[in-house]
Amino acid sequence: MTASRPLAPKIKGVLSPVLTPFDASGRPDPDRFARHCRWLLDQDVGLAVFGTNSEANSLTVAEKRGLLDGLLAQGIDATRLMPGTGACATPDAIELTRHAVDAGCAGVLMLPPFYYKGVSDEGLFRYFAQVIDAVADDRLRIYLYHIPPVSGVPIPLPLIERLLKTFGGIIAGTKDSSGDWANTSAMLERFQPQGFDVFAGSETFLLATMRAGGAGCITATGNVNPSKIVELYRTWQKPDADAQQRTLDAQRAAFAQFPMIPAMKSAIALKTGRLDWIHVRPPLVELTDAQRVALGAALDQAGFTMPNAQQLA
Amino acid sequence: MTASRPLAPKIKGVLSPVLTPFDASGRPDPDRFARHCRWLLDQDVGLAVFGTNSEANSLTVAEKRGLLDGLLAQGIDATRLMPGTGACATPDAIELTRHAVDAGCAGVLMLPPFYYKGVSDEGLFRYFAQVIDAVADDRLRIYLYHIPPVSGVPIPLPLIERLLKTFGGIIAGTKDSSGDWANTSAMLERFQPQGFDVFAGSETFLLATMRAGGAGCITATGNVNPSKIVELYRTWQKPDADAQQRTLDAQRAAFAQFPMIPAMKSAIALKTGRLDWIHVRPPLVELTDAQRVALGAALDQAGFTMPNAQQLA
Repeated sequence: MTASRPLAPKIKGVLSPVLTPFDASGRPDPDRFARHCRWLLDQDVGLAVFGTNSEANSLTVAEKRGLLDGLLAQGIDATRLMPGTGACATPDAIELTRHAVDAGCAGVLMLPPFYYKGVSDEGLFRYFAQVIDAVADDRLRIYLYHIPPVSGVPIPLPLIERLLKTFGGIIAGTKDSSGDWANTSAMLERFQPQGFDVFAGSETFLLATMRAGGAGCITATGNVNPSKIVELYRTWQKPDADAQQRTLDAQRAAFAQFPMIPAMKSAIALKTGRLDWIHVRPPLVELTDAQRVALGAALDQAGFTMPNAQQLA
Repeated sequence: MTASRPLAPKIKGVLSPVLTPFDASGRPDPDRFARHCRWLLDQDVGLAVFGTNSEANSLTVAEKRGLLDGLLAQGIDATRLMPGTGACATPDAIELTRHAVDAGCAGVLMLPPFYYKGVSDEGLFRYFAQVIDAVADDRLRIYLYHIPPVSGVPIPLPLIERLLKTFGGIIAGTKDSSGDWANTSAMLERFQPQGFDVFAGSETFLLATMRAGGAGCITATGNVNPSKIVELYRTWQKPDADAQQRTLDAQRAAFAQFPMIPAMKSAIALKTGRLDWIHVRPPLVELTDAQRVALGAALDQAGFTMPNAQQLA
């Protein structure tokens, strides 16, 4: 290990897998990306760049490195960043993780290798172990990204236990996007007391996670609805918390009628007037015109607003 | 398009997703890789390098480019090569596909982007279209890699129909690793008459595929049992074809009791005495000692031999 563990407090609260803006030819737009990150930070939302909702696996390793470097060059605070660095090829995961640690990021959110299905805990353990050994830096904080509905490769509880025993504080926490509260609850009960920070995979379970001692949530809709999600995080012990949660659920449902990533990008295009926000990379497709109209109506009905959206234009 | 379509006959017969040999530290071994390819070619097995059984998605783009360049530098015939070039990130798929076409490969075997599940045919169409438009070379021949049990992302028949209508002969065929004969059969019936070459995803369906007018098979066990599979391909119209198929099935079953990729690598280690053949990358793990002993016994019982295995040592 090349550096001793810093005393900086671990990142908590609400983070968002930051949407990646593309131009009409499909190239990432680093300036719009930085503006979106700054808008999120202004509302106290941390930056889980290169997550599922960032279309991270549709980006090359070089594109991800370049986008992260661009954020830092524009003065984005690395201690608010938790880039996704997991990859099917372990050398890619090592390269991205080392780059994030060298940049001073708060942590990395690591998918397991997700091509082969039904793999053993031993094989997944070796993947994480190889990354940790190769990066060899005590500043490394890995957040395990459990999202079996998309990745097809769960991170089972016994694997987490083994990783924690072997690597201690380097295994810093998890984002649980299983959608299975029983699993989140088991993680909270077994591992949160050891300082393993459990983030709900969306704001749907934010209140329940906070009540069970969790660290917050990392949520797609943080991209478009940050202030109200942060408000619940800050005030979850107040009497209106359940009512706040219900409002958040209704607003999320307005998006969830549509494919989530194109819908969020369309919402930003609607609210900012910047139509180039709609672009996605294959295999995703943008919403149809009819879907955009329906989305606009659904968002109005749910009382959805985007304060200071002009910052993103 | 930068080049006119050549008159070279399309590749047919038995191909194998070539196992990728690693050294003890997990680096690919280009010399053993080339020796294995030559051994396969000597037995008339084509080279579907960078397939599922090659641990292709556990390799970086640079590693795949380097390994392909190494094969060509060692004199491996490009017209016997069908590298896997599909990727989650379209720019990676474009880079690998262009590289394969520039090298003069017979074709490329393309996975769909496989991170997001439940994606639309339109999204998958755009992925293939972007690769074809970017490579812009009439020599390009794409074989669609349908392997939903692993990728989680099927290539549905209506998508194939649309791709064929739009891109004609560039959409050259498929490897159907669905394990679902009804699907293979439908592909054979609807698309093989248009010159879309259907390869069975394993020798299990080789005889049935040939009887239905197909092009051959692309099979993992081609790595270890090439001559007998090629024999059936050459003699499928002879009276003993069903008996040959049964022998092949029994030999495949000896491997299929174990995780297939580590088992094939162990079989080569057993037959050549080169123990470094056992190495795999995460998330795969090599067989245990006990599994290796059991594999040896199962192979003996199935009458399995590897002629000229010393070529691989």
